[in-house]
Amino acid sequence: MRVRKRKGVETFLSSYPEIVLQEPVDWKQIFENDNPIQIEVGCGKGNFVTKMALQHPELNFIGIDLQETVISYALDKILLSTLTNVKLLLVNGKELVNYFPTGSIDKLYLNFSDPWPKNRHEKRRLTYRNFLILYEKLLRPSGGISFKTDNRALFEYSLVSMSQYGMQIEKVWLDLHKDKEFAMENVQTEYEQKFCKKGPIYKLEAQFVSQEK
Amino acid sequence: MRVRKRKGVETFLSSYPEIVLQEPVDWKQIFENDNPIQIEVGCGKGNFVTKMALQHPELNFIGIDLQETVISYALDKILLSTLTNVKLLLVNGKELVNYFPTGSIDKLYLNFSDPWPKNRHEKRRLTYRNFLILYEKLLRPSGGISFKTDNRALFEYSLVSMSQYGMQIEKVWLDLHKDKEFAMENVQTEYEQKFCKKGPIYKLEAQFVSQEK
Repeated sequence: MRVRKRKGVETFLSSYPEIVLQEPVDWKQIFENDNPIQIEVGCGKGNFVTKMALQHPELNFIGIDLQETVISYALDKILLSTLTNVKLLLVNGKELVNYFPTGSIDKLYLNFSDPWPKNRHEKRRLTYRNFLILYEKLLRPSGGISFKTDNRALFEYSLVSMSQYGMQIEKVWLDLHKDKEFAMENVQTEYEQKFCKKGPIYKLEAQFVSQEK
Repeated sequence: MRVRKRKGVETFLSSYPEIVLQEPVDWKQIFENDNPIQIEVGCGKGNFVTKMALQHPELNFIGIDLQETVISYALDKILLSTLTNVKLLLVNGKELVNYFPTGSIDKLYLNFSDPWPKNRHEKRRLTYRNFLILYEKLLRPSGGISFKTDNRALFEYSLVSMSQYGMQIEKVWLDLHKDKEFAMENVQTEYEQKFCKKGPIYKLEAQFVSQEK
């Protein structure tokens, strides 16, 4: 998501060091509890992660993005709420391994990630093999990824990439918004609300399979 | 595919015992060569299998169906051609293991199989686990399945079923006819020609992964 830089964004973000993290921390201390932690890699303006936090007070959520202005809009939403179970992490996804202990994450969300359509940019896609290696390290054993996109090519690519990596696909929706039963519990991102009328929203849930199996 | 019974169909089929097989046979002897054998389970009226045979004289093809009348229309097509590399097998898919030695099949095609939408009919879907066990037996090591359908629910089901079985997805198309490069080489079934205008055609290619890996 490209956005125009917001004036004074650095100062704004650094005024809330208990919500916007920029350095490795002890997450249990930050959340002041031991609840499972779920992360959204590429949280954008934070609609999804804040709504999830509202619906699931028994879980902790961290929205991760590398753009200050984007993260600042997510901060706006948290400040308007009374939520204490959602934090933001300003970091490049590639470096996540330095911010979480191995196996410490309960679930990982990828929503409407940048499709990087050119072949030469394959390595930047958040479902590229190197990212899957990273996610597997972060997630608890048999931890899962939930991935949603409106980009057909990215979804095709991701199905193959995950399968080739040895992940198991647990559930697939090829037109999410036509699943009325599921539509009720589907928490939408800003992007999804805007683009779901233009074509199908694809979603999958996949799991890393432990080597012992 | 439900069709009205064709008059005298049994006599017609039994008049061509060198094309329409109904008993276990030595396939090398039937084809009079040692070329790789590819099979279509549920060949319907034979458009796909006969066109493939025409395009690939270096391969042998067997169209399999359990309905006499349907197979008889495939026989019509073969009789109109000079093809010697395509045969038909009148048998229920479930019994295929009795008709082919283990590991003797190069590739298996499933095209527009009956979706059996009711949960209680899951076991009849040609991508149900028990069929995958059967296909794995028939196929050569690392042999693959090519699966095509216009039925979204069946495609979602099949992606999960194959993944859960431990198959690797090699390639996915979520709107096959939009892939112009591929459209040239896509051999269509009768059903596909008729239904591709109503919505996307889904396709996947998947492989059984050898246990040693």
